[in-house]
Amino acid sequence: MAQQEVHNGEVAKGAVTDALVFTSVKPQLLVEAPKASDAIQFYKAAFGAEELGRTMHPKRKADQELPLILSAQLKLGGSTFLVSDLTHDSAAPAKTEGAGIVLCLEIEDVNAAIVKAVSAGAVAVGEIEEGDGVCGGGRVGKVKDPYGIVWVICSPALKSADVDA
Amino acid sequence: MAQQEVHNGEVAKGAVTDALVFTSVKPQLLVEAPKASDAIQFYKAAFGAEELGRTMHPKRKADQELPLILSAQLKLGGSTFLVSDLTHDSAAPAKTEGAGIVLCLEIEDVNAAIVKAVSAGAVAVGEIEEGDGVCGGGRVGKVKDPYGIVWVICSPALKSADVDA
Repeated sequence: MAQQEVHNGEVAKGAVTDALVFTSVKPQLLVEAPKASDAIQFYKAAFGAEELGRTMHPKRKADQELPLILSAQLKLGGSTFLVSDLTHDSAAPAKTEGAGIVLCLEIEDVNAAIVKAVSAGAVAVGEIEEGDGVCGGGRVGKVKDPYGIVWVICSPALKSADVDA
Repeated sequence: MAQQEVHNGEVAKGAVTDALVFTSVKPQLLVEAPKASDAIQFYKAAFGAEELGRTMHPKRKADQELPLILSAQLKLGGSTFLVSDLTHDSAAPAKTEGAGIVLCLEIEDVNAAIVKAVSAGAVAVGEIEEGDGVCGGGRVGKVKDPYGIVWVICSPALKSADVDA
């Protein structure tokens, strides 16, 4: 099952014993409304994210001044993440804040990435450290963005066997 | 840049104007120590995650009874996420809890996936709703796992144009 791919409702029949095959894990970032739009601009400027699409909040369109974002899809490298306005009405995607999740980004030049993120409005957290393996090895630094999300920025591991086995 | 892939330190030279190309976004789940090992078992049972590797916390090996997990890599569909023991000493991957992040999983059979997750120890949150587009359309349900993480489980969108444009 490791290399199996299932896309857009096309289930690989017979290859698995049931239909419980997840296709992907996408982090959804819940930003206090109505700042999701600002946050998307920030992720474009800080990390070079591309916006693939945006679905607006239907209940907010008619009777509210600011249209809210139900879900915007952003692409970064080979991954997709979602950004949503977090409201406190029942139609919000989730009322609960996420607990204990940070997002790890891999990049060759950790220093430059942190400088760029900070210039876009993020705050550096701690020092850049060498090879403690959090993201699989290499250099590791952290920034906190203006919306409270912590991004761990690390370079790829140069050697795969250098772990604490 | 949309389809570009950069793997393991092999930077595509000349294709971009700088080296600031991220290869991936990986959520890192910070679990109160020493429960990361339990959490990994839960993610295997509840979602069928596969463990790709595990790096132990070096400072805890000699002088602590329980070896802590610095970072374990779990694979789910085409995505990878990380699970770590969150400690309060300086070598912890992050002292800050993540703010406002939930994880979206795509699967054909949302009902069955929620039943399986609940039988493994998760708690269902709210009702399953139809096509509100949070993960791109389809059916959407939510569970909270025993470690505080909220998982949004949704089926793929059947039609791409059915959004609130």
